[in-house]
Amino acid sequence: MHELKLRVFEANMALPRSGLVTFTWGNASAIDREQGLVVIKPSGVAYETMTPDDMVVVDLEGKVTEGQWRPSSDTATHLALYRRYPSLGGVVHTHSTNATAWAQAGRAIPALGTTHADYFSGDILCTRALTQSEVETDYELNTGKVIIETLGETEPLYTPGIVVYQHGPFAWGKDADDAVHNAVVMEEVAKMAWITRGINPDVQGMDDYLMNKHFQRKHGSDAYYGQKQGR
Amino acid sequence: MHELKLRVFEANMALPRSGLVTFTWGNASAIDREQGLVVIKPSGVAYETMTPDDMVVVDLEGKVTEGQWRPSSDTATHLALYRRYPSLGGVVHTHSTNATAWAQAGRAIPALGTTHADYFSGDILCTRALTQSEVETDYELNTGKVIIETLGETEPLYTPGIVVYQHGPFAWGKDADDAVHNAVVMEEVAKMAWITRGINPDVQGMDDYLMNKHFQRKHGSDAYYGQKQGR
Amino acid sequence: MHELKLRVFEANMALPRSGLVTFTWGNASAIDREQGLVVIKPSGVAYETMTPDDMVVVDLEGKVTEGQWRPSSDTATHLALYRRYPSLGGVVHTHSTNATAWAQAGRAIPALGTTHADYFSGDILCTRALTQSEVETDYELNTGKVIIETLGETEPLYTPGIVVYQHGPFAWGKDADDAVHNAVVMEEVAKMAWITRGINPDVQGMDDYLMNKHFQRKHGSDAYYGQKQGR
Amino acid sequence: MHELKLRVFEANMALPRSGLVTFTWGNASAIDREQGLVVIKPSGVAYETMTPDDMVVVDLEGKVTEGQWRPSSDTATHLALYRRYPSLGGVVHTHSTNATAWAQAGRAIPALGTTHADYFSGDILCTRALTQSEVETDYELNTGKVIIETLGETEPLYTPGIVVYQHGPFAWGKDADDAVHNAVVMEEVAKMAWITRGINPDVQGMDDYLMNKHFQRKHGSDAYYGQKQGR
Repeated sequence: MHELKLRVFEANMALPRSGLVTFTWGNASAIDREQGLVVIKPSGVAYETMTPDDMVVVDLEGKVTEGQWRPSSDTATHLALYRRYPSLGGVVHTHSTNATAWAQAGRAIPALGTTHADYFSGDILCTRALTQSEVETDYELNTGKVIIETLGETEPLYTPGIVVYQHGPFAWGKDADDAVHNAVVMEEVAKMAWITRGINPDVQGMDDYLMNKHFQRKHGSDAYYGQKQGR
Repeated sequence: MHELKLRVFEANMALPRSGLVTFTWGNASAIDREQGLVVIKPSGVAYETMTPDDMVVVDLEGKVTEGQWRPSSDTATHLALYRRYPSLGGVVHTHSTNATAWAQAGRAIPALGTTHADYFSGDILCTRALTQSEVETDYELNTGKVIIETLGETEPLYTPGIVVYQHGPFAWGKDADDAVHNAVVMEEVAKMAWITRGINPDVQGMDDYLMNKHFQRKHGSDAYYGQKQGR
Repeated sequence: MHELKLRVFEANMALPRSGLVTFTWGNASAIDREQGLVVIKPSGVAYETMTPDDMVVVDLEGKVTEGQWRPSSDTATHLALYRRYPSLGGVVHTHSTNATAWAQAGRAIPALGTTHADYFSGDILCTRALTQSEVETDYELNTGKVIIETLGETEPLYTPGIVVYQHGPFAWGKDADDAVHNAVVMEEVAKMAWITRGINPDVQGMDDYLMNKHFQRKHGSDAYYGQKQGR
Repeated sequence: MHELKLRVFEANMALPRSGLVTFTWGNASAIDREQGLVVIKPSGVAYETMTPDDMVVVDLEGKVTEGQWRPSSDTATHLALYRRYPSLGGVVHTHSTNATAWAQAGRAIPALGTTHADYFSGDILCTRALTQSEVETDYELNTGKVIIETLGETEPLYTPGIVVYQHGPFAWGKDADDAVHNAVVMEEVAKMAWITRGINPDVQGMDDYLMNKHFQRKHGSDAYYGQKQGR
C-alpha cells in the first residue's frame, strides 16, 4: 500500500495548493480494488506536518487496518460511494468557496458552457436536504446515501461531482489525482456560473448538442483531445 | 511574558499572511489570566519591521506595564471583552474584505452551511449603531460594550466572532492562535454567504439540526472530529 | 522555425502565469507568413513538462510538417482566422473566468471605459450559437467561420478578440505575444464590466468620442502613448 | 533630484506589486516644491526593465528638464493638480479593477464604513463626463481640470482620491508613497462598497459622527492612532 499512500498523500497536499481547502477542510482517498482497501487522510491533521505514513488504511466497512490516526470523519461517505460504484478510484471532499455557495443555495451548478461540458455531462446536481434523523444517526453514511440517491442510475464518471445541500462539494474520478482534477474543475465552473448569472439572470442551460460534442471530444470512444492516451 | 509576547507577535504576523489585513489595519492580543495582563500589538507599527519585543503589555484597566510603544488604539475594546468573558484567551480585530462588507451592510452573516456551523453555532451577529455620544466619548470602550450587549448571555466561544456596524469584524478564541483561526473562518463564510445570496436571493438559514450536528461534531462533549485533543 | 517555436512556447507558458489558464485549457499560435506555416501548442500536454520542441508546425490547411505530437484540437479555428485575416500574426484561446462568463451569458463585453478603449475600438462581440450540424461536423472549423461572420468587415486588429457563445474567448494580435497581451486585457475588462453592471445595472456604453480618443492615442497614426515605436 | 527619482521609481514599482496595475497601466509622480520640478514615470516603459534613471523630470508647465524618455501621457493631469493644490506631494493614477468599475458606473464610491473613513473624509467623488471638445483638445489637461472642478473647495488631502468618469482612479498624498498608499485604500474600499451593496442594495451612507471620529482619530490635531508622528 506504500505506493497508494503516497498518491493519496499527494492528492491531499494538492487541495490547499489549488486553493480548494483552508486549514484541514478537505480530504482525498483512493481505493485498491484488488485488496478492497481504501487509503484516506487522517482527521484534523495539519497539512504542514502531514507525511505519507500518516495516511490511514481502512477496509470497505471502515475497519482501520493500518495507521496510527483516526481516519477522516467523512470516511463513511467515501466508503458508501466506493461500495456502490465500482468505477470509482478516488474521492475528494472540499469546502471550496464557489461550489460550496451553490450547495448553500440549494441549487445544481448549471451546465452553461464548454468548460463545464469538457468534464461534466450535464448539470452538477444538488442533493435534497437530509432529514433530522438522517443527520442525527449515521450522518456521514447517510451523506453517501443521499449522493447515491441523487445520482440515480447515472454512471458517476460522466458527472464526476455533486454538491451536498447546505454542505459542499464531493468529486471523484478514476483515481485520486483525477478526483482532485475534477474538484478543481467544479470550483472553476461554479465560479463561472455565478458570474454568468450575474451578467444574465435569464441565462438558459447550454445547447445539448454542444454539451455532447465537448464531452465526447474528451471522453467518448472517438476522443480526439490530447495524445490518444486520453485527457 | 516572553512566551506570550512571541505568540501574540506570531498571531499578528499571521493576519497579513492570511490576507485579512492590509497595511496596519488589524490587531491581535492574548491574556495571561493568572497575572491579569494582556499582550497586544502596538498602534500603527508596520508589520515588516515589527518584532516580538514591540508587543505592549497592559493590565485589564489599560495601564501599560511593559513596552516602549503606545498600544493599539483598539485596546479598550479588547480589554472590555476580556473583563466580561473569562473564557476568552485571545482577541483579533481586522478589516477583512467580506466580513467588513457585512458590517457595512448592517447585517448578520447568516449560517447557511456546514463550513459556518463547524465553528459558529448560529448567525454571526451585527451590532446596533453606536450613538453619537458613544462614539464621541470612550469610543473604543463603547465598541466593546455594544459587542457585549449584542452577544447577551451567549457563551462567546460558541459564536467566536461578531461584526460591528459600519466598522468590521472582531473574533476571539481560547488563545491568540485560535482567535486568528476564527477570523479566517469568518472571512471565508462571509464570502460564501455573499455569493450564496447572489445565486439564490431567497435562501433561508440552514436547518438547525444540521447546524447542531456539525458544531457538536467538532466542539461537543462527544466530538469525533480530529484526534481526540479536539479540533 | 526554431525562433518562432520559442516564441509560441513562451506565449503558451505566459497563459497559466497570467491566471488565464487552468490545467491545459488554452493554446497560443503564431504564423510565419513567408513560409505559410503556423506553430501551435500540442493538444493536452501539461505545461509543467512542455518544451519549445513540443510545439507543432502545420501548414495553412492543417497538415503537420514538424513535431511529434498531435496539434491543439482547436487548430482548425486558428487556421481559419489566419487564412481570412492577413494582418494576424498570433492567436490565443483560453477559458479565462470572466471572459468565459460573458460567453456563457451570450452577451458582448460592452465598452464601458478607457481601459477597454485603450485596446478595443468598440464592444467585444459575442458570436451567435452554432447550429447542431455546425457542431457535429467540422466543429472547430465552424468556430472559426462564426468568428469571421461576427467580425464582418472589421479590421480584426482594431477589436482584437471575441467571445464564442457558450464557449469562451479568442484573442489575436500582430504576433503571439501581442495576442497573449490582448487576452489578458479581455479578461480584465470582462471582470470590470461585470462589476460595473453590478454597481449600476443601467450603465450605458461609453461616449464614442472618449473611446476614439483613447484608441487613437495608442494605435492611431498620431499615437503619443509610449516611446514612438508604439505601445 | 536623485533622491526623488528613487522614491518615484519605488512608488511606481509598488503599483503592480500591490495588484493595482496590469502591464504599464499606471503612473506615479512626486514634486520638489522648492525647485518647482516634478518627477514622473516614462510613458509605456515596462516595469520589469525600468530603473530610477528612467524617471523623467518636468517643470510645472510640462517642459522636460531631465531624462531620455517621453514622460507619462498623463503628465498634464498630474501637473494641473500640483499647480492647483500646494499641499500635494505625490499623485498616482491606476486602472485598479474595483475603483475603475465605480468610474465606469459613473458613481461616487460611498463612505460606508470606518475603513473608508480612516482615510477619506466623505464619499470618493466621480467627475462629470468630459465634453467632446474637452476630450479632443488638451484631453489630459482637461482631465486635471474636471478633477479640480469636482473637488471644489475641498482640501484634497482630506479626500485623497477621485474617480474620473468612464476612466479610472486618481489618488494623491503628501508624497509619492502616501499617494500609493491612498490608491491601495481606494481599491480596497471600492471592492468593499461593491460587495456591501450586493448584500444590502438599500444601504445608506455611514453615520457622519462615526466618519468624523475615525478620520480625526488618524488625521486630526488630537490624533491618537499610531506613534505620535501620525499614521
